[in-house]
Amino acid sequence: VPSWILDRDKIADLTNGCGLLGSGGGGDTYGFRLVLESLVAERGPISVIDVGELAPDALAVNVGFVGAPIAMIEKLFCEHQVVTALKAMRRRLGQPIDAVMAAELGGANGLSAFIAAALLGIPVVDADGMGRAFPLSDQTSYSIYGRSASPTIVTTEYGDIVCVDGGSNRRVEHLVRALSVASGHKCFTVDYALSGDEVRACAVIGTVSIARRIGAALRVARAEHTDPLPLLAAALTNTGGLAVRTLFNGKVVACEHETRAGFGFGRVTLESILPSVEMTIEFQNEFLTARLGGVPVATTPDIISILDSDTLRTIGSDTVRYGQRVKVIAIEAPPLMRSPEALLIVGPRAFGFNLDYQPISART
Amino acid sequence: VPSWILDRDKIADLTNGCGLLGSGGGGDTYGFRLVLESLVAERGPISVIDVGELAPDALAVNVGFVGAPIAMIEKLFCEHQVVTALKAMRRRLGQPIDAVMAAELGGANGLSAFIAAALLGIPVVDADGMGRAFPLSDQTSYSIYGRSASPTIVTTEYGDIVCVDGGSNRRVEHLVRALSVASGHKCFTVDYALSGDEVRACAVIGTVSIARRIGAALRVARAEHTDPLPLLAAALTNTGGLAVRTLFNGKVVACEHETRAGFGFGRVTLESILPSVEMTIEFQNEFLTARLGGVPVATTPDIISILDSDTLRTIGSDTVRYGQRVKVIAIEAPPLMRSPEALLIVGPRAFGFNLDYQPISART
Repeated sequence: VPSWILDRDKIADLTNGCGLLGSGGGGDTYGFRLVLESLVAERGPISVIDVGELAPDALAVNVGFVGAPIAMIEKLFCEHQVVTALKAMRRRLGQPIDAVMAAELGGANGLSAFIAAALLGIPVVDADGMGRAFPLSDQTSYSIYGRSASPTIVTTEYGDIVCVDGGSNRRVEHLVRALSVASGHKCFTVDYALSGDEVRACAVIGTVSIARRIGAALRVARAEHTDPLPLLAAALTNTGGLAVRTLFNGKVVACEHETRAGFGFGRVTLESILPSVEMTIEFQNEFLTARLGGVPVATTPDIISILDSDTLRTIGSDTVRYGQRVKVIAIEAPPLMRSPEALLIVGPRAFGFNLDYQPISART
Repeated sequence: VPSWILDRDKIADLTNGCGLLGSGGGGDTYGFRLVLESLVAERGPISVIDVGELAPDALAVNVGFVGAPIAMIEKLFCEHQVVTALKAMRRRLGQPIDAVMAAELGGANGLSAFIAAALLGIPVVDADGMGRAFPLSDQTSYSIYGRSASPTIVTTEYGDIVCVDGGSNRRVEHLVRALSVASGHKCFTVDYALSGDEVRACAVIGTVSIARRIGAALRVARAEHTDPLPLLAAALTNTGGLAVRTLFNGKVVACEHETRAGFGFGRVTLESILPSVEMTIEFQNEFLTARLGGVPVATTPDIISILDSDTLRTIGSDTVRYGQRVKVIAIEAPPLMRSPEALLIVGPRAFGFNLDYQPISART
């Protein structure tokens, strides 16, 4: 019994919702949206199932691309890479795969679960491992709450199939990152094989529906030329009550970007029109901190996203450019991703920032 | 029916022979010799079998460490890493492993086959994939003559187990190198699973016996304080007729070494006492070219080795130091490794040198 069906009409909303949840990362959605639209046109709509629909011993696996977002734009989507990886995982586990999930429901990686589902003819679970995108593959609720990333299957556009059983989830991340760098900064992974009970215990739940509602709110705001904030707040109230704030309106005045060690690192500087205030946003694939006049106003794990002021389309850390007129939106992380154990893995200190996390709802 | 038995008394000869065949690479033998001696003392001698003893469908696998030689000195040997990799290969192939071989019978990697054999209680085949050591894992006779390196099992000291099925043997090398760098520039691999018939068709045959005879020749020369060249020539005449030359006698006057991209790169400069002539030797893990006063006198695939003038012990690219008094010896590559197809993979141009290969026996 699917909770709902992703047909062609809903793909745009899902895409834009994943974009906002990407926090600047997860890969640009444009190319993946085209692939998904063509797959749905060809093979029919995709079922989205509630976590409650998974049998206790059903097998769900997580999928996504690992690499630097900028490489995801450059390199075309390869169907074979996705199918081969899922088949290798099924062979390794000796059990059919009942459903797929996005390891991170942000950016193109949010859509990659739907692409995998379409190719295999199985449903997508309404949940993910981050409730957003994060740079490291072990920055998932699964890893935080004790599940193993092993075996992780990695496929590349060179026809390589690699199965990684790591000494730890951080080692898996480290090895998969090395394989990604050795494959043009992009590889596809299937990881975190979970039973239905495990999904219920440790996934971030309901996020696919949240993404769709966020996308719908942005669509309405764009059509009506209104401030998206009240619509986003309403969309999030209906699905869990996460705070949402507008952090900034202004233009991009500087942008540094470096692809290094398998990630995109950098900093964006924004300036408001009048009065002139400066916001700086630092990123490692994802936007991780936002400071206004030097003072932190939002940090990871809260989502920090940059939207084009006119189109309300997400601008990623890889596509942000000098001169863009933008709106910076923050959404509070779900409780599962801001517990003390989660903050050790995804809080600002985990990324080397000398800052404590304060949820945006607790800031004035 | 073993051709011969490696007991404790023969380990020193085997070690010194592997050292000379290392062409400066394959890892320093000192630590591995101690491990092998202790394993043989504990578990008894190891059988060395002729390739003719392998049943047509017997399974032989190749073993060795991949990384920068200098990391092999720094990091201690880990028995668990070796056993885990062999078990993973056996599981993957669904067939017991009948014998092991050294992927490269040079340096410590030559001894690693014996260590694996001792740990599994199976014989070593009197053959290897290079007849020496080379920097890349696809620079084997197996790869040159069309065998697949996949599946390659990689284990690390962090407890990782990775199975690589590459799009090509060069892709396997590229991915394994990345995994090695991500594991402190050292990992253990099991690769090139071959049937008895395949071993006979494409391995470099008899090299374990050659290594032992070379070691014996060096031992006798050291004990008798004589020039090792006639003894080495006799050892090689008995086993295939490869030319051997003394290229230089002198001292190390300069040495550049850089660990980069998973390899040790550099150049050694030597000076003879009187008349003063300069030899330069360039290396990527292994010594690849030797020039006398700027003129090439030996290149890969011929073996170029540096020996301590007094002890006749091999000095590797990782252990060569200013002030050492040395003898440079070259041994001609076996025919299998200097065919036109082999030279594309292991000739000087494959390493970026603008030189054609000329066997030392054809030089004046």
